[in-house]
This record gives sequence, structure tokens and C-alpha cells, in this order.
Amino acid sequence: MISVAIIGYGNVGQHLHKAFLKTESIVVNQIYVRTLSKVAHLSSNMVTNNLATLKQADIYIIAVSDDAIPEVSAQIHSKNALVVHTSGSVSIDVLDKHKNKGVFYLLQSFSKNKAIDFNQIPFCLESNNEKNDALLLKLATAIGKNTYAINSNQRQQLHVAAVFVNNFTNHMYKIGNDICETHNIPFDILLPLIKETAAKVNVLKPTEAQTGPAKRNDIKTINNHLSLLNDQQQYIYKILTKSIQDG
Amino acid sequence: MISVAIIGYGNVGQHLHKAFLKTESIVVNQIYVRTLSKVAHLSSNMVTNNLATLKQADIYIIAVSDDAIPEVSAQIHSKNALVVHTSGSVSIDVLDKHKNKGVFYLLQSFSKNKAIDFNQIPFCLESNNEKNDALLLKLATAIGKNTYAINSNQRQQLHVAAVFVNNFTNHMYKIGNDICETHNIPFDILLPLIKETAAKVNVLKPTEAQTGPAKRNDIKTINNHLSLLNDQQQYIYKILTKSIQDG
Repeated sequence: MISVAIIGYGNVGQHLHKAFLKTESIVVNQIYVRTLSKVAHLSSNMVTNNLATLKQADIYIIAVSDDAIPEVSAQIHSKNALVVHTSGSVSIDVLDKHKNKGVFYLLQSFSKNKAIDFNQIPFCLESNNEKNDALLLKLATAIGKNTYAINSNQRQQLHVAAVFVNNFTNHMYKIGNDICETHNIPFDILLPLIKETAAKVNVLKPTEAQTGPAKRNDIKTINNHLSLLNDQQQYIYKILTKSIQDG
Repeated sequence: MISVAIIGYGNVGQHLHKAFLKTESIVVNQIYVRTLSKVAHLSSNMVTNNLATLKQADIYIIAVSDDAIPEVSAQIHSKNALVVHTSGSVSIDVLDKHKNKGVFYLLQSFSKNKAIDFNQIPFCLESNNEKNDALLLKLATAIGKNTYAINSNQRQQLHVAAVFVNNFTNHMYKIGNDICETHNIPFDILLPLIKETAAKVNVLKPTEAQTGPAKRNDIKTINNHLSLLNDQQQYIYKILTKSIQDG
């Protein structure tokens, strides 16, 4: 049995808590939250808003905003426990005061009201020694199955890659939606294409999957498209077309 | 029974042929192709490379490249038959010499070796009168189910919107893949996020689904990300971050 304290109760903290509750090998013995009224539904001896009153646990999971990690870490007296954070963009070094430290980064976009299938989520794990690696692996495989050893440098890179495939991709959807709304076209028409585009990279590399006027250097279609767009859309269309062609 | 001639035998022509063969209400009575050797597997009295020898049909489906549509249309003597093209970016007006004309545009990215589920594909239909509308609807619902009345102006807009959600999105995947390759990270780690991002817009509008450092105006993370990217990636990161923030 591994005992865990969850420090911070935002999207990540809440989803982890729910997942650990379903396991037999992990017990959550405490949850830290700044505002106790937010966890009124939990037993009062489970929760604290004072880091000085943290009980002993095998693993302290820091699931607070990136900026707050150093301050929270400083207030944890871990003794021999493993202290991990869950951030994609913060180095393991921020936890240097702890003898046993690690990162437990779940690469997924968490939404408050959407159930998460942890079997689909990649767990990116890092720690400062093999014993801690093994402990983190136990923690991860208790609730999921896709685990990767990812060091702090790789994790930072992964985090910025995720901005491209998630935030920037979603922005492409947003522009598509804007165009549809302006011309009274149901955005639904584009959903199968969005799904297919996402599915294709499961079987083809993105460069192999690429099609369209930029790839074909179909200047007539490109110019026609530009004539249909507003200034901001035109600007992005030109830059991404050039980037596709530059390879 | 609706008789159809398919003019052109690229991805679209081939997929349509396969789909029509499975129906009881549509019969393909002829296929035109420029190079006969490409259709050596088909019965020779089914195929022609000479538009002057086209037999009568209820519907002529022009599935050639956009640039070739006017020339092919000019050589079809349709009499009372309906002549349609399958292009997303060409107006119905290119078929003006025909009394009965229309557009049969399937908004999907077709790959040669990938089976297509026509029940997932949006059929964008347009014609010059109600009788032809009804005929096109019959043709579409014989092989699929999602049909939309889309005029030539809307279709052009839809085509450019599709470039954003398909080609440009795929380019975001490509940049994500480049970053992973450079740092020995398996691109597989990003696939669940790609799938989730695409699935989200089925239930949320893209603006509502947006997350990440640009949306939060998290300048520290943005600057850190920029420091990790090469020049071209930086340039795109900056422009798309600004575009997300401009809303």
C-alpha cells in the first residue's frame, strides 16, 4: 500500500484523487487546499489548508500552478518521502531540497467536468534514483498503463510540442469555425475531417499525411483562398503555407 | 435505378465507384480515364479514354482536377442528363453549358489505400433546380447519410476552412513531431492529446475549448517555450500565440 498526499486540488489534483480512490494499492491520506470551503464535501480530517500540518506519506504529489511549486516545496518536510510535482514545464531541480524527488507529469488536457480515461493518458515519469523510479512506476500503473521515462529537458520539449498539437491546433479549429459562422455554414460539416486528420497520424507520419494546396504548390487555389479571408486569417494562411512548403 | 458515368478515376472517382457498386439503386455504366492502362482490371466495355464516346447516363460525375473541369465539361454532351463536379473550390457556373448542373462535393481527405466510411462523410450538394436537388440527394443517400445544401460561395468558404482544420492542423502535428524527433521523444506520447483535442470540439466550441499559455497570457511559460524552439518554430509560435490572444 502506498500512501499519498495531494497538495493542490485543481483539475489534476481532483482527477488523481478520483483515480486513486478506485485502486487498492494507493491510499490518499491527506489533501492540501488553500481554501477549505472548496472541499467541504470531503471529511475534515482528510483536508488541510496548512502545509505545516501535513501528515507523513510515502509520496507528496504537488499539483499546484507552476509558479507556486517552489514555495510549496519549501514548506514540505518530506524526511524520506518522495516529493513529486506534476508540471510539464518545471524542472525536477525545483525540488532540490528533498532527498527523494521526482516528476509525475500526465500529458493530457484536463477539463473539470469531463471524465478521464487514465488508460489513454501518457504518464511521463522522472526521479533521482532507481528506487524512486520504481515507486513512481507503481503509482502510475495503479491507475494507468502508458508510462514513459522522460527527463526534465525532454519534458520541457514535450510541453512545447503539446502547445502545437493542442492549443495551436484548436486555434486552427477556431478559425475554421469563424469562417463557417460568417457564412452560415454548420461547423458540424468539418467534424469528420477533424477526426480523420487526427486519426491519420496514428498510421502515417505527419509529413506523409500532408495534402492540400500548400503541399501541391497549387498557386491558383492558394490565391483564391487568400481572396476569401480577412486580414488576420490571410496572414496566418500565408505563413503556414510557406512553412509547409519549406518542409 | 440511377445510371452514372464517372469522369476521372483518381482517389475520389475510385472511392465513389466502389461505393456505388455496393448499392442497388445506382449503376455505374461507364468510367472515363485518360490512361486506359490504369484501369486494366475493369471490363473494357466499361471504360473509355475518349469523351466523345461517352454513353448516355442520368448523371455525369466529373471527378478530375479543378483545372481540367472546364475542358472536360465542354466535351460532355449531356442532353437532359445532370452534370456535376466534385470540387470544393470550383463554382457551379463552370458547368453553365449544361441545362442540368450541380456539385457533389464530399468534404473529406481521401487517401488511396484507406477505406472510406461514407456514413461519416458530409455530402455538400448544390444544383440549379429542385428536381436536380432531389436527384443529387438520392445519389448521396444511396451511399451516405450526412447531406447538406451548400451553395458555391459557401463551398469555397468551406474549402478554405478545411485547409485550416486539416492541412494546417496536420502541420501543427508535423512541428510537434519535429520537436519530438530532435529530442528522442516518441511522438506516440502526443497521440492521446491529439485525439482528445479533436474530440473536444464535438462538445465545445473551439473558443471554449482553448487552454494553454497563450490563452492564460502566461508570459513566463511563453518565453520559456520560445527559448526551446528553432527560428521557424519560434516565428509560428509567436504569431499563433498573438492570434489566440487577439481572439
